Amino acid sequence: MSTITQAEKELYLTLLDLAQKYPIANDWLANLPNWLAHIKDKARYANAPYYQSVVERLPNMDGKTIRTDFTAQNITFDVPLSQGEIKQTTALLKNLMPWRKGGFVIGQGEQSIHIDTEWRSDLKWDRVLPFISDLTDKRVLDVGGGSGYHGWRMLGAGAKTVVVIDPSCLFYYQFMAIRNFVGSLNNPPNLHFIPVALENLPFTTENNKQLFHTVFCMGVLYHRASPFDCLLQLKNQLLKGGELVLETLVVDGDENTVLVPKDRYAQMNNVYFLPSVPALTLWLQKAGFVDVKCVDVNVTTFDEQRKTAWMDYHSLADFLDPNDNSKTLEGYPRPKRAVMVAKKL
Amino acid sequence: MSTITQAEKELYLTLLDLAQKYPIANDWLANLPNWLAHIKDKARYANAPYYQSVVERLPNMDGKTIRTDFTAQNITFDVPLSQGEIKQTTALLKNLMPWRKGGFVIGQGEQSIHIDTEWRSDLKWDRVLPFISDLTDKRVLDVGGGSGYHGWRMLGAGAKTVVVIDPSCLFYYQFMAIRNFVGSLNNPPNLHFIPVALENLPFTTENNKQLFHTVFCMGVLYHRASPFDCLLQLKNQLLKGGELVLETLVVDGDENTVLVPKDRYAQMNNVYFLPSVPALTLWLQKAGFVDVKCVDVNVTTFDEQRKTAWMDYHSLADFLDPNDNSKTLEGYPRPKRAVMVAKKL
Amino acid sequence: MSTITQAEKELYLTLLDLAQKYPIANDWLANLPNWLAHIKDKARYANAPYYQSVVERLPNMDGKTIRTDFTAQNITFDVPLSQGEIKQTTALLKNLMPWRKGGFVIGQGEQSIHIDTEWRSDLKWDRVLPFISDLTDKRVLDVGGGSGYHGWRMLGAGAKTVVVIDPSCLFYYQFMAIRNFVGSLNNPPNLHFIPVALENLPFTTENNKQLFHTVFCMGVLYHRASPFDCLLQLKNQLLKGGELVLETLVVDGDENTVLVPKDRYAQMNNVYFLPSVPALTLWLQKAGFVDVKCVDVNVTTFDEQRKTAWMDYHSLADFLDPNDNSKTLEGYPRPKRAVMVAKKL
Amino acid sequence: MSTITQAEKELYLTLLDLAQKYPIANDWLANLPNWLAHIKDKARYANAPYYQSVVERLPNMDGKTIRTDFTAQNITFDVPLSQGEIKQTTALLKNLMPWRKGGFVIGQGEQSIHIDTEWRSDLKWDRVLPFISDLTDKRVLDVGGGSGYHGWRMLGAGAKTVVVIDPSCLFYYQFMAIRNFVGSLNNPPNLHFIPVALENLPFTTENNKQLFHTVFCMGVLYHRASPFDCLLQLKNQLLKGGELVLETLVVDGDENTVLVPKDRYAQMNNVYFLPSVPALTLWLQKAGFVDVKCVDVNVTTFDEQRKTAWMDYHSLADFLDPNDNSKTLEGYPRPKRAVMVAKKL
Repeated sequence: MSTITQAEKELYLTLLDLAQKYPIANDWLANLPNWLAHIKDKARYANAPYYQSVVERLPNMDGKTIRTDFTAQNITFDVPLSQGEIKQTTALLKNLMPWRKGGFVIGQGEQSIHIDTEWRSDLKWDRVLPFISDLTDKRVLDVGGGSGYHGWRMLGAGAKTVVVIDPSCLFYYQFMAIRNFVGSLNNPPNLHFIPVALENLPFTTENNKQLFHTVFCMGVLYHRASPFDCLLQLKNQLLKGGELVLETLVVDGDENTVLVPKDRYAQMNNVYFLPSVPALTLWLQKAGFVDVKCVDVNVTTFDEQRKTAWMDYHSLADFLDPNDNSKTLEGYPRPKRAVMVAKKL
Repeated sequence: MSTITQAEKELYLTLLDLAQKYPIANDWLANLPNWLAHIKDKARYANAPYYQSVVERLPNMDGKTIRTDFTAQNITFDVPLSQGEIKQTTALLKNLMPWRKGGFVIGQGEQSIHIDTEWRSDLKWDRVLPFISDLTDKRVLDVGGGSGYHGWRMLGAGAKTVVVIDPSCLFYYQFMAIRNFVGSLNNPPNLHFIPVALENLPFTTENNKQLFHTVFCMGVLYHRASPFDCLLQLKNQLLKGGELVLETLVVDGDENTVLVPKDRYAQMNNVYFLPSVPALTLWLQKAGFVDVKCVDVNVTTFDEQRKTAWMDYHSLADFLDPNDNSKTLEGYPRPKRAVMVAKKL
Repeated sequence: MSTITQAEKELYLTLLDLAQKYPIANDWLANLPNWLAHIKDKARYANAPYYQSVVERLPNMDGKTIRTDFTAQNITFDVPLSQGEIKQTTALLKNLMPWRKGGFVIGQGEQSIHIDTEWRSDLKWDRVLPFISDLTDKRVLDVGGGSGYHGWRMLGAGAKTVVVIDPSCLFYYQFMAIRNFVGSLNNPPNLHFIPVALENLPFTTENNKQLFHTVFCMGVLYHRASPFDCLLQLKNQLLKGGELVLETLVVDGDENTVLVPKDRYAQMNNVYFLPSVPALTLWLQKAGFVDVKCVDVNVTTFDEQRKTAWMDYHSLADFLDPNDNSKTLEGYPRPKRAVMVAKKL
Repeated sequence: MSTITQAEKELYLTLLDLAQKYPIANDWLANLPNWLAHIKDKARYANAPYYQSVVERLPNMDGKTIRTDFTAQNITFDVPLSQGEIKQTTALLKNLMPWRKGGFVIGQGEQSIHIDTEWRSDLKWDRVLPFISDLTDKRVLDVGGGSGYHGWRMLGAGAKTVVVIDPSCLFYYQFMAIRNFVGSLNNPPNLHFIPVALENLPFTTENNKQLFHTVFCMGVLYHRASPFDCLLQLKNQLLKGGELVLETLVVDGDENTVLVPKDRYAQMNNVYFLPSVPALTLWLQKAGFVDVKCVDVNVTTFDEQRKTAWMDYHSLADFLDPNDNSKTLEGYPRPKRAVMVAKKL
């Protein structure tokens, strides 16, 4: 194993505090060294050492006074950087492309770097926030949280502790790159990233001894070969009375309508089940959730998902039928996403 | 661990022969002691010691000449048993109730025991056999094979080796009880039972080094939370060009029609996905199968599934709406089963 | 797993600090949850829940000002306790008998509790301290450290961090009982107890990446069936240039003299090799140590090891031949202990 | 994993027979695939693929009539080989040098190959055989059995089953090379080689359920850092009343005399404890053996251990002080070996 970073140490501290009250946190502690070793293992992730070196070369923020804003369109780190540092930082962050979820602003005024990501992730957040339980002082899990954008927004909405999980090596280092700019705050933001997949999290059968009040899972379910296993794993992370916020691709139809693309969907591999909202509602109920509500249905637009300087590869416009924007290249209905909110009894 | 029986030793011998040609058979060998220890572990299966004692008390067949018939409606062991043995054997076998898949006949003429099971499993076999590849000299896997009835029929149809897998402790001992009556043939029937679930079988990525020419999976898919994982696991047991014979519950509808019962279906727990035949066809193709054909669709009748002296509990008649036999008690369409045949490329 | 205590959390914090510099500390972190779960497992240690309840009922020291002395004959916690608390605490601590290594004083003046242990462990410490490397600011491991007495003395001698390891469940809870009286100091004493055996500590082949400057191992070697494995395990915990302080039973003789008691020795079971000092010197050299010196040889007296109110069972006087105090009951030479000091190259 | 050979299959068959009576044999079965995979793993044993190819290119003995003699000085396979085959076989077997334990004769009359090994292993056998229990119909374990010479002699002395264990990759393939010449006997010799170290064999606490009547351990103990662990592991393989035959290097002296060479002994690395015969006797008793007898003490001569055409490197003559043959190069007493016989109660 290798050494741990300051950010990883702060993650341990959060788990240690939990482990004084929740036995399951002890299982997270027992796994954490292996989870961290795994994501840095170059036999698995050839780019890991390179990404790590990118993060290590970012400007040192020790002792710098930083103002942050986690409530606006862009997650903002108002930090003094010289013109040289801006240039160098921009180059380093571009080495972590493609940037999908954001955006982020680092620096001050005209000198700032704007990481303009493929997704305007704030738009989704603005649609969802009004319909979910107040996050103030809550512990929150964000499953498949990518670079961590929504995690910062959860912190901005008052959450006490946010844990982002995502098995992607690139997203881990994107998160660490952004986190570099919190500097040496007295109270470092209680937002952590664990490079692990949902299915590998510790499982508990102990009643109401789970760690989280709210679990988010956005953009994950349609990639899972087994939606029910996914829903049960999500439920297992929630305290009694806790809330699941689930976003996934849907199609029109009744309780028995489920689209399974034979091959790709909007050029994505590994897409399995796209249920209708009534079918998804039934699935959540079958998985044991109650108070199941659909709070948003949205056809993704070119304003929300598009090619940028920080993701210069194919995006939504390239995935649709050029002659009929209501269809994907493969002839399926254009991407439509629903947000479901449900409670654990 | 405990000692092994003659039947288990013969299973080892079959795997050893395979292990001289197929590396994956070595992985089966490495797991076999644990699989066998698992099913006999009374901490997991409280009835295991009792079932085992039942099997051990069956009449000793050593040195007896036995005529068998694995091609008729009932799997038949034409074996001389005294009236006392018939009586005792009947009592012992009744201790292994409920008997679901069969039937079996043990003994001679009027002295024989007819295990009249809940299912007339021969009816399904007769519908399926004409449409599948010739089994002569093939190695065959029967996933979820229960008491082993269809396994004997596969042997009767010419298969060289048949391996039945099923994680049920009761079915393991039902199989061993039946197998007791093969006696001491010079060439013991090459039919084996491994008490393991499909998802726990060794997996190989080595091209065309799998063990089986044909894989049967009947009555399993609708019980799996993840049908795609099930299909991929089945595919992974097949040699290139091998054939899958898949039977599962279906509903009427188009490619996008899938019934997911919110709670029970025909009084069964743990029922997940009931696709239409077109949807199931698409799923098989998505899982990488070719030449996908539906060879039989059959609404289950009271002739095929019913209460008997060997399964005296609720059966099909109790699962249907008494006022409308076209519906289940829960109001879903009455059970209809399709048999699909598909090839691995 | 269960929750963790404040003392265990402080142990984690120490390892976390080390893990930012030393990869091997990460392996300790990965094992720690299991080590702690193991010692509390009532299937292994029937008394563990009882001992734990004893420790939990000790007076709460939160917010109390405490003066400590870790340099005197008795480890002293000068803490205000009412007469009732003294009485109750005495009773609780007596439930953790037998107390072997000490002594300890808890309370003020005449109201204090004096845990008068079987061993006057200060006598050994006084003989050893003049001959070992200065402990100031060092990280120290005490293998087989029992209740932790010498660990406190190491802290008193200036060590920065002391880790006591011992696989005994009773000693773990004796340590935790004593540690209860440090109260809520701003800087809690950096002395920790891990309930693990030497042979189960993480092993590293990385050059000079070990955690410790000095390793103590007193009263352990003669209980090990394999002295060389023990010496190599001790060496593996030391940084380059680090120092081993080894105390064990010896006999008179030359390089080739080793007493192996056929059965018991001084009534102790599990006694294996008692080498002469020249043989022990050679063993240390063979194991790769340099600058091997014998700094003390001492025949144990009745002043140093004896029955007390806190260990009211058989002690040294009962282990010797009543007619000839120069011999054990079994006729072997009376216990003589040597302290060896050696360096890792 | 890879496929298994005919010799390995026969090993399985032997264990299967045992597993019908002895639960512990099931643990051997469970480990066997991994033991065999381990020794063929080129990441661990770089030469394994080469050695294997040597064995595979030996002449095919299928269907050949072979006369064998396992009772003479040389293990003899009287098999018809052409002059070309003799030449080719000699070259192949020389690729498996150095040959230490033997000798072996393959072929007929003047056309035969004589593998003249470093050790005249028959001399030791002749000294030991008169003093051990009759091996007729016994199951025997030979720990550290090298190329298998003594194993063949045990078979020649009437043993029913002999299992040789040795963790050496070279010796494994030497054994397999020799075994090639048994041809296709109806009853293949019940002599097997498992490439595993003593300390990794399954351990049982079940009374009298071990597999072996006699355990040999010759030339191993002085290489073990922990002689007591070795003795207890040997004892754990023996049935109640079974016999240990232990051969190791000894020195002159009394119960408390043990030579531990600081560095090399007779140029060998990894030499630990050389006890006197009285000390070794005491150790065996302490380990729980009874009826401990020393049946042979022998100073190794140049007739018994010497350089040959099949081991053309340094041998005994090179390990002794050229000016004083009573001493090793390092100045220790010249190698003297004792054979101990002891029973398990």
